[in-house]
Amino acid sequence: MADLRNAAERMLDADKASRALGIELAELSEGRAVMTMTVTDLMVNGHDIAHGGYVFLLADTAFACACNSHGPVTVAAGAEVSFVASARLGDVLVATAEERTRFGRNGIYDVTVRRDDGAVIAEFRGRSRTIERNGEAE
Amino acid sequence: MADLRNAAERMLDADKASRALGIELAELSEGRAVMTMTVTDLMVNGHDIAHGGYVFLLADTAFACACNSHGPVTVAAGAEVSFVASARLGDVLVATAEERTRFGRNGIYDVTVRRDDGAVIAEFRGRSRTIERNGEAE
Amino acid sequence: MADLRNAAERMLDADKASRALGIELAELSEGRAVMTMTVTDLMVNGHDIAHGGYVFLLADTAFACACNSHGPVTVAAGAEVSFVASARLGDVLVATAEERTRFGRNGIYDVTVRRDDGAVIAEFRGRSRTIERNGEAE
Amino acid sequence: MADLRNAAERMLDADKASRALGIELAELSEGRAVMTMTVTDLMVNGHDIAHGGYVFLLADTAFACACNSHGPVTVAAGAEVSFVASARLGDVLVATAEERTRFGRNGIYDVTVRRDDGAVIAEFRGRSRTIERNGEAE
Repeated sequence: MADLRNAAERMLDADKASRALGIELAELSEGRAVMTMTVTDLMVNGHDIAHGGYVFLLADTAFACACNSHGPVTVAAGAEVSFVASARLGDVLVATAEERTRFGRNGIYDVTVRRDDGAVIAEFRGRSRTIERNGEAE
Repeated sequence: MADLRNAAERMLDADKASRALGIELAELSEGRAVMTMTVTDLMVNGHDIAHGGYVFLLADTAFACACNSHGPVTVAAGAEVSFVASARLGDVLVATAEERTRFGRNGIYDVTVRRDDGAVIAEFRGRSRTIERNGEAE
Repeated sequence: MADLRNAAERMLDADKASRALGIELAELSEGRAVMTMTVTDLMVNGHDIAHGGYVFLLADTAFACACNSHGPVTVAAGAEVSFVASARLGDVLVATAEERTRFGRNGIYDVTVRRDDGAVIAEFRGRSRTIERNGEAE
Repeated sequence: MADLRNAAERMLDADKASRALGIELAELSEGRAVMTMTVTDLMVNGHDIAHGGYVFLLADTAFACACNSHGPVTVAAGAEVSFVASARLGDVLVATAEERTRFGRNGIYDVTVRRDDGAVIAEFRGRSRTIERNGEAE
C-alpha cells in the first residue's frame, strides 16, 4: 500500500500538467482514487464559471491514478462525460474514481466530480487500455 | 458573418481559460469552428506527452464556438471522446468542429483534433443544449 | 411499492417489443430495476453469439423501467455501451439498472448486463429525460 | 467490389438476428454501408413507437457491415447513441454507416439513422476492434 501510494505520487510528481493545476491526491487504493482541485482564475470563462475542459481534466487525472493503481502502465482510450452542474471560481472540486470492471487489457472506471458541498458537477466514465512495457501502439 | 466572428471573438476574449492556453480561432462559420493550440510545457506529463485533458479542452472549446455560432446561448451537456494518438510538447493541434444535427434545443457536434501533420489525435462528439436567456436550469 | 410494481408491469405489458423477446422483470424499486432475458435462436448470428443489439435492448429496457419508477413519463435521450464479453445461445442474461444521479429533468443510470454465471457481458450508461404529460418535444 | 458485397451478404445471411428483423443491405463500399429496416409490430411499445433498442440494433448492424468491409474480422467494442426523434410502426428506417478514422486495430464509425422522409432518428458512433483470426480475446 505504501508502494502503491509512492507509485501514484511519483506519477503525479512527473505530471507537470496536473501539478500546475494544483491537483492533489486525497485517497488511493487498488482501483480507486480521490483527487481534489480548486477552481482558479485561469480555469473560468467571463462569467466565472469553470470551463468544462478543466472539470474533465480533473476527472481524467483521477481515472489515470485509479487505472494505474494495479501496476502495469495503463492509458486512457476514451471517455464519456455528462456535465451536471456548474463549478465556480474558488470551488473545491473532489473527483472520486472507481473501477467498474476489467476485461483483458481493458477497464471501465466511473468518476463522479462533486463540489465540496456534495453537489454533483459531472459524471465521467473512462475506458482504459493496458499497454506493453515497450509502449508499442496496438 | 462579421457579426458572427465578432460574437465568437467576444466569447473567446471573455474566456480566460481558453486565452490562458493560447487557443486561437482560425475559422468560423455557422455550425463550424476551427481552433488551434500549441502543446506547452504546462500541458504535458513526465514523458512530454500532452495530458488528454488538454486535448479534450481544445475540442470542447471548438465545440462551444460552433454551437454558439447560431446565436442563442448554448452550453455543453456532455461529450464522448476517443484518444487516437499522442500529442507531444511543441505540437500544434488543430480542432475542427462541425454540427452533425440539431433537434429542439439539442445539438450534436463532431470535433476532430489533428496534429499539424494531419494525424488524428482525438475524435470528440459533443452534445449541446440551448438555454433560456435567464440561464435557468432545466 | 405495489403501485410502483403495477405501473412498471403495465408499462412492460404494453411494450410488445420487450414481451416478444421474453424480457421479464425480476426486481423493482425506486431508481432500480433488474430484468432477465434468455438468448434465443433469433438473437444470434451465424456463430451462435448474441447480436450486441439485443444485449443493448435488454439494458435499455431495464434502464426504462428504472427511470420511470419515479412516476413522471421519462424517455431515453441516449446511451453509451461497452461490450465486455460474448453471450451465447441459451444464456440467461440479467440486467441490473441503477440510478446514478438526477438533475432537473435529466437522469443518468448505469446498467450492468451479466450472464447467470456472473460474468459481465456489457456496461451501459443511459441518459434519461422526463417529458411533459403532453409529450411535446423540447 | 463484387467480392466485398458477397462477403457482407454472407455475413448477413449467416446473421439470423438481422435476417429475422428484415434488415437489408442497400449499399456497400469500403468503410461504408447503408441498411434498411421497416418498423414492425414486434418492435413497438404500447404507443406504436419503436423501441430504441431496435433503432440501435439497425445502426449496430450497419456499423458491423462497414467495419468488416475491409476484410479482417472486426467486432463492436462499444457505441454511443443519441435518440433524436421517434420512429413509428410502418416507418422505413435507413442507417448510413461511414468510417471516421482507423488506428491500429481500432476504428470509429458514425451511423445516422433516418426515416425515409429524411428526418434523423438517431446518431450512433461505434468503436470497432479487429481481432485475430483465432478469435482470441485480447
